[in-house]
Amino acid sequence: MTVATPEDPSALSPEQARGLFREGLSVPTSGWSGGWTQANLLAVPREHAYDVLLFAQRNPRSCPVLDVTEPGEVRSAIFGGDLRTDLPGYRVYVDGEPADEVRDVREVWREDLVAFLIGCSFTFEAALLEAGVAVRHVEAGSNVPMYRTDRACRPAGGLSGPLVVSMRPVPAEQVADAVRVTSRYPAVHGAPLHVGDPAALGIADLGAPDFGDPVEVRDGEVPLFWACGVTPQAAVMASRPPFAIGHAPGMMAITDARDSDHLIP
Amino acid sequence: MTVATPEDPSALSPEQARGLFREGLSVPTSGWSGGWTQANLLAVPREHAYDVLLFAQRNPRSCPVLDVTEPGEVRSAIFGGDLRTDLPGYRVYVDGEPADEVRDVREVWREDLVAFLIGCSFTFEAALLEAGVAVRHVEAGSNVPMYRTDRACRPAGGLSGPLVVSMRPVPAEQVADAVRVTSRYPAVHGAPLHVGDPAALGIADLGAPDFGDPVEVRDGEVPLFWACGVTPQAAVMASRPPFAIGHAPGMMAITDARDSDHLIP
Repeated sequence: MTVATPEDPSALSPEQARGLFREGLSVPTSGWSGGWTQANLLAVPREHAYDVLLFAQRNPRSCPVLDVTEPGEVRSAIFGGDLRTDLPGYRVYVDGEPADEVRDVREVWREDLVAFLIGCSFTFEAALLEAGVAVRHVEAGSNVPMYRTDRACRPAGGLSGPLVVSMRPVPAEQVADAVRVTSRYPAVHGAPLHVGDPAALGIADLGAPDFGDPVEVRDGEVPLFWACGVTPQAAVMASRPPFAIGHAPGMMAITDARDSDHLIP
Repeated sequence: MTVATPEDPSALSPEQARGLFREGLSVPTSGWSGGWTQANLLAVPREHAYDVLLFAQRNPRSCPVLDVTEPGEVRSAIFGGDLRTDLPGYRVYVDGEPADEVRDVREVWREDLVAFLIGCSFTFEAALLEAGVAVRHVEAGSNVPMYRTDRACRPAGGLSGPLVVSMRPVPAEQVADAVRVTSRYPAVHGAPLHVGDPAALGIADLGAPDFGDPVEVRDGEVPLFWACGVTPQAAVMASRPPFAIGHAPGMMAITDARDSDHLIP
């Protein structure tokens, strides 16, 4: 089925956006449903749920937990849709290998799965735009670039792996604005954890992201790096639990929570 | 063994304070080790740890998790002492009944216990004092009054129970200051969740706290209520898991983390 990308996806309600994905649309969600919180998804069997929740507690910058479902449930307190069909794309992991990237996970869903919804930096992009800070990958209509770093997360039980970051280039004179605006959203990764030289994070080539698409970094711009909710999926890849389902990077769960719910005064 | 309360407990380092408790001193820790973070303790068998961690995630105002130990470990990343001996008092729960209040839990410690250190409002009391807001129970040298409310926490697995609050009376003209100061410490309960009439929380008599000691509320003062880290222990009492160890109310774990670690800008 072919579903066209709407002209102004930022104006869609979460329910409308989820409906388009359920009908078959598969695109990154950056810029969609302005003002509504987007979330990373990781679903694991109940027996591995403690490790994921503890990993999140120990790595709060990259894994701010917004909600956790009861085993087998397909909706959550902040996600009125169906977690198996209402994201634009999924990755199914078997023994840590991304076996399949699919539009729908009803076939592989299990009754013992616990789903974690984890804050996403797309949430603060509307606030950046409002403050006059352009977001390159939104302008380009591409996915945000994400990189594995050389920083290890604090392990939890069987889960360990590298910190993953997203990158947005910002003109030098707006770096302070970008820090100020995003630091008010600690539940969705907050302030950048690194400003400037990618090598300091062990990133060799900004042009070759591990997830998402590369973006241009122009003269006079500084790359800003935020902790990224793909981090738990990188831990799944590194630690190889038997089964897990994640969102496809950049293709988030659009929730019924407002961005302003995560704003601190 | 009799160990005297030192003249100025606020000047003690966490290590010094823990040493006195280990030697037998058993007193509330409000006002101790100024600038160092105090924490509530709840230790449960590994098989119940997920419920506790999820309960905390779902009730972040009352249960801000500062650290979680590996099963059987007696120290944590933020607590260099021995969790079995270095708090001034403990409650041992069997089937949800506080079977025993003791100074030391080495006899009943188990290899499968996971300890949760949960933020405590004593942490922001130094900041209140610095802002010129007196803290009545510190002046009185008594324990903070704590009350079960008629508000139910969001349950998690087998754990459910009422929200517990601590109360501090504040002169009407300083209520705004108290709110402003404490809201900067979201990891240790943050701003009051209720200002004024205790009946609105289902508290019938301020003079009869469920935990701790009553304090005087003077003319012109308003009672301020903060979410309290005794909440998970109230859930243990309500939900009756087979075994748990908590701190004795008001007798906290004095950690090696600084209060300023929990301060937001």
